[in-house]
This record gives sequence, structure tokens and C-alpha cells, in this order.
Amino acid sequence: MTRLEEIRNQIRQTVADVKETNPMAGSITNSVTINLVANTQIAVGGSAAMVYLPDEGQFLVKAGGATYINMGTMLPIYEETLPLAVKTLKIEDKPWVLDPVAIGIGKLRTAMLKFFKEYVPDIIKGNASEIIALAGLWQLEGGTGESKVRGVDSTNHVDEAKAAAVSIARWTDGAVIVSGEIDLVTDGEFVATCRGGSHFLGKITGGGCALGGAASIYLTSSTPFIAALTAVSAFNLAGERAEEQTDAPASFQMAFLDELYKATPEDIADYHFEMEEF
Amino acid sequence: MTRLEEIRNQIRQTVADVKETNPMAGSITNSVTINLVANTQIAVGGSAAMVYLPDEGQFLVKAGGATYINMGTMLPIYEETLPLAVKTLKIEDKPWVLDPVAIGIGKLRTAMLKFFKEYVPDIIKGNASEIIALAGLWQLEGGTGESKVRGVDSTNHVDEAKAAAVSIARWTDGAVIVSGEIDLVTDGEFVATCRGGSHFLGKITGGGCALGGAASIYLTSSTPFIAALTAVSAFNLAGERAEEQTDAPASFQMAFLDELYKATPEDIADYHFEMEEF
Amino acid sequence: MTRLEEIRNQIRQTVADVKETNPMAGSITNSVTINLVANTQIAVGGSAAMVYLPDEGQFLVKAGGATYINMGTMLPIYEETLPLAVKTLKIEDKPWVLDPVAIGIGKLRTAMLKFFKEYVPDIIKGNASEIIALAGLWQLEGGTGESKVRGVDSTNHVDEAKAAAVSIARWTDGAVIVSGEIDLVTDGEFVATCRGGSHFLGKITGGGCALGGAASIYLTSSTPFIAALTAVSAFNLAGERAEEQTDAPASFQMAFLDELYKATPEDIADYHFEMEEF
Repeated sequence: MTRLEEIRNQIRQTVADVKETNPMAGSITNSVTINLVANTQIAVGGSAAMVYLPDEGQFLVKAGGATYINMGTMLPIYEETLPLAVKTLKIEDKPWVLDPVAIGIGKLRTAMLKFFKEYVPDIIKGNASEIIALAGLWQLEGGTGESKVRGVDSTNHVDEAKAAAVSIARWTDGAVIVSGEIDLVTDGEFVATCRGGSHFLGKITGGGCALGGAASIYLTSSTPFIAALTAVSAFNLAGERAEEQTDAPASFQMAFLDELYKATPEDIADYHFEMEEF
Repeated sequence: MTRLEEIRNQIRQTVADVKETNPMAGSITNSVTINLVANTQIAVGGSAAMVYLPDEGQFLVKAGGATYINMGTMLPIYEETLPLAVKTLKIEDKPWVLDPVAIGIGKLRTAMLKFFKEYVPDIIKGNASEIIALAGLWQLEGGTGESKVRGVDSTNHVDEAKAAAVSIARWTDGAVIVSGEIDLVTDGEFVATCRGGSHFLGKITGGGCALGGAASIYLTSSTPFIAALTAVSAFNLAGERAEEQTDAPASFQMAFLDELYKATPEDIADYHFEMEEF
Repeated sequence: MTRLEEIRNQIRQTVADVKETNPMAGSITNSVTINLVANTQIAVGGSAAMVYLPDEGQFLVKAGGATYINMGTMLPIYEETLPLAVKTLKIEDKPWVLDPVAIGIGKLRTAMLKFFKEYVPDIIKGNASEIIALAGLWQLEGGTGESKVRGVDSTNHVDEAKAAAVSIARWTDGAVIVSGEIDLVTDGEFVATCRGGSHFLGKITGGGCALGGAASIYLTSSTPFIAALTAVSAFNLAGERAEEQTDAPASFQMAFLDELYKATPEDIADYHFEMEEF
């Protein structure tokens, strides 16, 4: 079996496991897209629960198979909730996904993101600008101190973030997803390039958050790299199929969630991507 | 007129009243499903308003015909908001619906849910695990100290919660809804068993919250038992009709809300359920 | 070129500019409709970002071309966030849209809305009751001390708010939108009356918030009066087209967002309205 066949088998197995076992991943996530994240996690076969308070976050970390932390809309209590959550993740040796949305905006977000470096997220998902900014904040190669994040949007192209993504993945010994027109997934050694999806994923809010949420569900059943690649492949497949049915973003979002739900383990495992060694 | 005919008349009257008078029920509810709750309350003919702050909650309690309190995503300020709301409900003698989502998670949620026992909610809606856990927390028959709540999902079957639901309804002199594949509604004397609906209600987030929100609207115009049974019947009817149109959860959610809006008082009153004395 | 032709040219230009430049407007807005606001802002061609914390609000004010402040669900931290945001708006000389949702409910909301008088919002959007109440709170003509706001709904007709809208617009030297079955837009001198749209906009939550959010995007590229009129015309056009496709509110909302996305600069500029001098 080639490396690529092995990966496809693992993707198929991950999707099938999730659909069969309905694993729970708790989230501390932003209120703009919280509903879409939950519905996405359920659509791929998982179970969702979201909280804000410190001891509730701690409870979910322990109860879930993985945790999703998204920095979108920070609340004052997060100063306590987030450190307790990541410390508990480390104590419990449970995997987690970090979505450094809007990195560079505000003192608390910056402090938390710095703090997270030692608590090594298993998967980090961001757009190109976010990944470059995180590598910068963590003083890793490929990063830059000057964030080019504009609100929640990227002003960099995915390829510009490849070095940053690889160096972050090497630091965390996990996986990094750079989402964009083309998506990159890397474990620090290999870089998978994933085409497909739909431009409409950029015309709705929360496509990226939903991807992080789905990755956290898959992470309950597989390694960071496979979970990340599974989530990206599922999204590209569902996005492509949804775009065939619609010509506008709201009906696209509905069709996208429907297709995510309907995609079989085989569909997702067979979706095209390219691998290269870095 | 038989007892059953009487109930059907009351359901028809409740739905018609709400459609005609557009009653407002204020909510303190979770941010994951807050939009769906509001749209559901509007779809059945009511008006929605949601707040977080203590004096704003107090205002809505006074202004609304009923209040919906859902424990999904607790915020620090709820330590003040929730007690003031339920005290005001008692002073004003206004009815309310409690949705003890995620009972067992966190100190504040537990403290508030204990506190609510003396402020007797008129309708309590939960899945089987939540109802059993609430009876346990309130030291009523049928409950257990060990919560089997997993995040927001139930790990118990509806029938296992029947004794707990009845004992809670007797304590509150109100109604209890146990939602699940089959729904139970009890006033502590009679138990209505409601089949129908759709499995897709379990494949979207917020089906339960929306049911509680709808019940609070109907509660502005009728007794707890009738309001609860009306909401459950409306949901089962709309779920059944929506499922005929779709094969996936996102399009189901849209069709479900549409069918909820289109259901006539007669449609809802004629929906099948079975009654037994406990 | 007549005044009306000039206005239509400016509307066309505004819509085209926004579609071409993808301007960002940051928001501090309520959690009930936050997702719809973001998707609306993206659908018309803009970019959305939402925050709660003081320094994050300040950042977004500086980074965005305009800001949207909606008073729907107040959080305790808003006591710091909102004053800092509007002070920064003044220092940076950036335009903003105020949506005084639920004016009259709660001490903090009232204190903030009073405070905003000196920070003159460029566009104020409300239903008739909200606009009358705001004029009352600001002690301007046409207002009344007694709010007839019921939760988030209006109990006044649009025409009753005309005097209040005009006096507010004169105070701010900006524009006021009174939304309802018929919408009014005034700059204090002229009043545009806009018919069309759909009754379904009143059967979903957030139609008004979405209008304010869209207005903030258009405000990045034009004067308050043109931005307001552009947003109202776009909504009436999209509402009318969406209603032709549906018979219920959830499918309406989807079709509405789709039509908003598809509406061309010409479509929106050509939409009918009437102008009168006040």
C-alpha cells in the first residue's frame, strides 16, 4: 500500500468512525458563527456543546473526545476560561483545535494566543494571514510581526503561508490547515494541497469556523494530520456539490450543510488532493 | 364532550389566539440557538425578545405574557439576571418555561437550577437525561443524583424519564415535556405520548430549544399542559411535513420552520397523541 | 440632471463601489441576529467583523470604513466598549450607524443612548416606536418621553415617526431610516418614501438589524442619506423578489439573502421611491 492509499484508508475510517460513534467535541467559540459550527459538527456525525464559563469549559474538555477553541468574539471571562481549558487539555492529554481568528486584535486575544504556544494545539486552522501572524507571535520561521489580518479576512495568499504553516506544525508536532481558495494541510513534513470547494464558502460567514469545528470532531477519532485532511476534503467535496445546485450564498450554505451530511466515507476519502514533501 | 375533544378544542383555541394576538414572550437563552428560538416564536405567531442583563430581564418578564429561560450558555452576569427574573415572575404571577439544558455542567448552572425549585416553572422541557437529572437535583421521585447528560444530548430513553417527569409536574403543578424520538407531556396526572416529528430534529442544533421557545408563546394563552401539548403537536406535525420534502438536515430546518408557520389551528389540534392516566 | 437622477446615479455608484472594493464595517451587535447581519454585509459585497471588548471595538473602528452599533443584547462590558467605540469614531472622524433596538429597556441601554447624542451617529435606523422614543430621549421635536416600544417591535405606524426622524436627522446632520411596511429615509430636508419589500421581513428576526448592517457597508462609500436609501432600496427589491419565490418565512429569508447578493447596481438604483421636501 502506498502512502497515499494509506492516507485514503485512514480518512475513510475516520469518517466512518465518526458517523458510527457520534463523538462529542466541546467548543468555546464565537457567537457570530456558533450555530453553523454546531450544525456542521452534527452534520458530519458528531455532537456539539458550547460554553463560556471556566468550570463549564473544563467539564467539556474532560467529557469530549476533542475540543474546539475559536478566538472570534472574546468575552471578559475568557481570561479565566481559556487558560483553564488548555491546562485541562494538557492534564487530560486530550487533543484540541485552535482557530486564531482575528489574531492581532486586542490585548486579551494576543495574550491568550501567546499563552497557547506551550499548550500546543493539535490542529491549527487559519487563513493565510492568520497563520503567518501566529508564526510571528510565536517567533517561529515564516511568521512576521506585522499582522496583515483585516478583521477576519486574509490579505495574503495561501502559498505565502506555507513556511509559517510548516514551522508551526513542527513546533506543535500536530497539523496546520491554511484555508483559502486552495487549502494547505501540513504535518510539518508533508504538505497536502487541496483544490475544489466553492468560492461561495468565502461569501458566507463562518466557513472557516465550521471547518475548524468539523476538524475537532474528526480529531476525536484520528491523528491531527488525518483529521485535518478529512475535514478539508469533506468541505471541498460538499462545497463543490453545493455550488452545482445554487447561484447565491444563502442557498449555497444550506446545500453545503446538506451535502456535508450526505457525503459518504468513500466520497470523502476519494476526494482529490496532492502531496509533496516539504 | 370527551376529555380528549376538550383538549383538542383548547389546542385549536390556543393556536388561533396566538396567531391573532401576536403575544410576546421574552427569553434569556443560549447563544447557539438563539436565532432559531426567535424565528420559531415568530413563526408560530408570537413575538421574541432576548436579553442578558438583570434589569432588562426584569423588564421583559413584566412586559411579556410568559418567559423562556434556557440554561444553555451561562454568562457570569446570569448570577444576578436569573434570580431577579424568577423572583419577578413570582411577584408578577407570570408563567414561565424552564429548559435545563446541560444540567450537571458547572457550579452556576447547578446553583441556579436548585434555586428555581421554589420558583416553580410552569413548563419544564428537557430530554430524558435532563428531566431525570432535574428530578434528582430537586430530590423528587424518579430522579437520580448521577446525571447521564452528555453535553447537551440525552443518553436515556424517554420512557425512563416518565416517573421523573410526573413527579416534577406534581411539584410544580405545571407541565413537563420530555422530548425525544417519542415525546411525553404530563401534568402529573395524565401523560400524553406524542409520536411523529422527524429524526432530523435530532440532526440540527436547537430543536429542543425551539420547542421550549414555542411553548412559552403558547403559554401566554393557555394552561401549562395545553401549551406544552400544543407546542409538541405543532413540532411533530411540522417535522413530519418537512421530512417529506427533504433528505438532509439544513433543508429540513428551513422546511420545518416554514411548516410551523403554515400549520393551521385545526392541523395542530388534530395531530395524533395518546393519553393515559398515570 | 434632476435631483432624482443624481440620487439614482449615486446609489448605482455606491453599490458598484462596494461590490468592487469589499469594504469592512465592524460591528458591536446583538447575538440574536449577529449571523444574519454578517451574512447580509457579505451578501451586499462588504466584509464583516464583530467584537465585544473595548480595545477590540476600538481596533475595528479604526480598521473599518464605518461601524455598526446595535443595542439589541447588552453585555456588562458594553459600559466600557460602547463609549470607547464612539469616542474613537469621533477622533478618527469615521461614520457609523446606530440601531437603538429595544430603547427604553434597562439602565445601561438608556445611559448609552443618551451618551450617543453628542457622538452624532451618521445613520440611525429604527422602527417607528424606536425613532419616536429616541427623539424623546434626546429631547428633540417629534419625540415623546413615553416609549411605546414593546420588546423589539413597534406599536407605532411609520408616518407617526416622520417628525421625530426629521428632527433627529437635523440634529445629527445625517440620515434616519424608519423601517416598517413603508420605509422612510430622511436627511432632515428631504423625505424619501420607499414601498415594496415583503411582509415576510416582519416574520423573521433580524430584518431590521440586517438593514442597519447593510447601511453601514454602504456608508463606507457614500453620504449617510445615499447609504441609507441604497440599503432600503436593496432590501425592498430583494424582499419583493424573494416573496415571489416563497410562501413562508424561513425559505423567504434564504431567498432574500440570495436576491440581495444577486441585485445589480442598476437594479437597486432603479427601485422606486418617492421624494418630498419636509
